[in-house]
Amino acid sequence: RLEDVLDGLHPADIADFLEQIDESGREAFFSLWSGDAAGDVLSELDEGLREEVIGFLDPARLHAAVRDLDTDDVVDLVEDLEGVQKEAILGALEDVDRFAVEKALTYPEDTAGRLMQRHVVTAPEDWSVGQMIDFLRDNEDLPDQFYHVTLVDPRMAPVGNVTLGRMLSARRSALLRDLTEETFIPIEATETDENVAYAFNQYHLISTPVVDEGGRLVGVITIDDAMIVLSDEHEEDLLRLAGVGEGSMSDNVLDTVRVRLPWLAVNLGTAILASIVISQFADVLASVVALAVLMPIVASMGGNAGTQALTVAVRALATRDLTSSNMMRVVRREVLVGLVNGVAFAIVMGVIGWLWFGSAVIGAVLGVAMIVNLLVAGLAGILIPVVLERLKFDPALASGTFVTTVTDVIGFFAFLGLATYVLL
Amino acid sequence: RLEDVLDGLHPADIADFLEQIDESGREAFFSLWSGDAAGDVLSELDEGLREEVIGFLDPARLHAAVRDLDTDDVVDLVEDLEGVQKEAILGALEDVDRFAVEKALTYPEDTAGRLMQRHVVTAPEDWSVGQMIDFLRDNEDLPDQFYHVTLVDPRMAPVGNVTLGRMLSARRSALLRDLTEETFIPIEATETDENVAYAFNQYHLISTPVVDEGGRLVGVITIDDAMIVLSDEHEEDLLRLAGVGEGSMSDNVLDTVRVRLPWLAVNLGTAILASIVISQFADVLASVVALAVLMPIVASMGGNAGTQALTVAVRALATRDLTSSNMMRVVRREVLVGLVNGVAFAIVMGVIGWLWFGSAVIGAVLGVAMIVNLLVAGLAGILIPVVLERLKFDPALASGTFVTTVTDVIGFFAFLGLATYVLL
Ligand SMILES: [Mg+2]
Ligand SMILES: [Mg+2]
Ligand SMILES: [Mg+2]
Ligand SMILES: [Mg+2]
Ligand SMILES: [Mg+2]
Ligand SMILES: [Mg+2]
Ligand SMILES: [Mg+2]
Ligand SMILES: [Mg+2]
Ligand SMILES: [Mg+2]
Ligand SMILES: [Mg+2]
Ligand SMILES: [Mg+2]
Ligand SMILES: [Mg+2]
Ligand SMILES: [Mg+2]
Repeated sequence: RLEDVLDGLHPADIADFLEQIDESGREAFFSLWSGDAAGDVLSELDEGLREEVIGFLDPARLHAAVRDLDTDDVVDLVEDLEGVQKEAILGALEDVDRFAVEKALTYPEDTAGRLMQRHVVTAPEDWSVGQMIDFLRDNEDLPDQFYHVTLVDPRMAPVGNVTLGRMLSARRSALLRDLTEETFIPIEATETDENVAYAFNQYHLISTPVVDEGGRLVGVITIDDAMIVLSDEHEEDLLRLAGVGEGSMSDNVLDTVRVRLPWLAVNLGTAILASIVISQFADVLASVVALAVLMPIVASMGGNAGTQALTVAVRALATRDLTSSNMMRVVRREVLVGLVNGVAFAIVMGVIGWLWFGSAVIGAVLGVAMIVNLLVAGLAGILIPVVLERLKFDPALASGTFVTTVTDVIGFFAFLGLATYVLL
Repeated sequence: RLEDVLDGLHPADIADFLEQIDESGREAFFSLWSGDAAGDVLSELDEGLREEVIGFLDPARLHAAVRDLDTDDVVDLVEDLEGVQKEAILGALEDVDRFAVEKALTYPEDTAGRLMQRHVVTAPEDWSVGQMIDFLRDNEDLPDQFYHVTLVDPRMAPVGNVTLGRMLSARRSALLRDLTEETFIPIEATETDENVAYAFNQYHLISTPVVDEGGRLVGVITIDDAMIVLSDEHEEDLLRLAGVGEGSMSDNVLDTVRVRLPWLAVNLGTAILASIVISQFADVLASVVALAVLMPIVASMGGNAGTQALTVAVRALATRDLTSSNMMRVVRREVLVGLVNGVAFAIVMGVIGWLWFGSAVIGAVLGVAMIVNLLVAGLAGILIPVVLERLKFDPALASGTFVTTVTDVIGFFAFLGLATYVLL
């Protein structure tokens, strides 16, 4: 039976399997499979497929599935749903959970408030280890997974975290407040999830309390969810650098065209701009065909050198390794790297151009254009992402277009302009 | 005093600060600062700077710094060191820790064996919660951070994980084996760290035991370390896609040239190949200058469309969303996306080419070349990374060069070849 095979599989693997088959396969799957992990499977599933799969679950099953989930997973589920489906899921929840989910949904998308789990294990500041252990034993309704007890003051403001390991190794009479962790970083509910992931990775947090504007505890974020955000933010940067919008392997042709065509259109605009530059030099191109043969080399080398510099810059901005304190040093470095690479490839291509077309002048023009373009590539590669970041644009999103436009335009202009001056 | 300012800073932030100043600043810092977090700062510091900074610490201080660290952090530190420095650090350790570190170093780099912490909290299968709590209270030497008790059989093979939270909420008489977590995934010490990070993110592990070939427990990996691997692996993919080797913001000009020049050299080779293709069509280029003006547009659109497809493929291979089960569907999709985009841009550029140069033939040639190139871009963009992965090469590393070579060559060949056929 299907259940026996699937019983050994983790819900994340079932979700991956569902993502790799087609819609009719998924429908058949849910009509055959009556396993009780439907909630977890839904939560692991690619966001683009959840609406479809919810449609395959009858109301009773959806009800049971949703009740199995932690509130943070329910939030992640309903935030992309609308109308009937959203109501069905909220309606399936117990009052206290529905309240928690609705509260989380009042925070903007992609914030700590959306990531947090409402259910937090807390204790008054003055409790002892013994009191806490007895409290935990008598409590029927603890979260599935928790790693800290959060100490709160009478206003419900978190004042410290005690790891369960530390607590377990202390005497019953020890006070919790004497066992708190050194690193304690409560996060505001309106903080972006990107900053949350950064804080977890930078400070090696395992779980950390979330507070409202008044500093009162409203939830807790755990590292497994922060790790998913980190991975998603990485993916976003990677795809944006390649000019691809959000999508997934299970998207169809038209959805895929929709996330790729816009950036190709932008690229077409910049390519036309480069062609306009070339067209200014029609005379020299008509009389020296070697120029048409060689000009893509200058542009291609500039584009690649610029992409190297900008990718390093975008990544360093994301990891906060590039800041105002080392900016000038890095800009200087990129310019010098451009110069060194430029001179190296100028020599190589100067000689090749000379031998290929039997003209030292063509070789020299090619060499000089190469130096100019790689220098400009280094400068544009570092400055454009930095300026975009300062202007609050995502440097991953637009830097590539700007940088290659600059290197194309400068490359063609330098090469053909110089050739016109020297050869005509 | 410097100490007062730095006392409030996390070692990770001190390390970041050190990365952003120059060598003389770092030397001055360590002669002024006598804080006791030197070990953690060293461990957080960029690998490229550790050797330098260790040189600033006198033997007594290095000794104290190293003794503060967990064995996994010592492994991470010494694996990149040599000679005197390595000896000094190993010599500073207590025997049991040095043994653990030396054992970890016997596993290949970038494996679970290098990531693991030797110090694991274990219990016999038949222990009760009460026995375990008493054991933990009496144990003076527990790890700083631990999240599970790992149950082991008499052969020391791990058989289950009990979360501390679950244990704390159970009666003293409850048996640990009745409280084990459903998801339990021991990892072999020789497993790659990339697979370790994948498993943590896929299965939401917090900590998991590491076993040797015989299935015996040899250590434990915690999620904070897996998160760092995930982030590093991502950075590697991002930089490799841009043709940049390993490096950091604090590298100097020559180190940076060393990681960027090789790939620019490869790119030069492919650019020359494209130029050779162009040179085959010197006749038509000399008689119709419009072709030289327009030809970069075809190559640029192909390169960008190919980069989109290959980036999506490389990412999906890394996240295992692209497998043999959905391969055919994805290949078909990429070809169709290429066709749709190709037709769309063929119409746009066909009209622009026609109006710009007053020749419907030039517009038509441009349009057909655009369709051919975007179709080929989609196909190359998906197939090249997949084939490289099958051949055990890193698809992030070489795909870009291959794909843009294909789109350049095909682009110029289709456009100029068709033009020769029609116009000459
Ligand atoms: Mg998945
Ligand atoms: Mg989840
Ligand atoms: Mg969501
Ligand atoms: Mg985000
Ligand atoms: Mg969660
Ligand atoms: Mg971002
Ligand atoms: Mg750092
Ligand atoms: Mg850093
Ligand atoms: Mg550490
Ligand atoms: Mg290391
Ligand atoms: Mg690796
Ligand atoms: Mg560790
Ligand atoms: Mg990799």
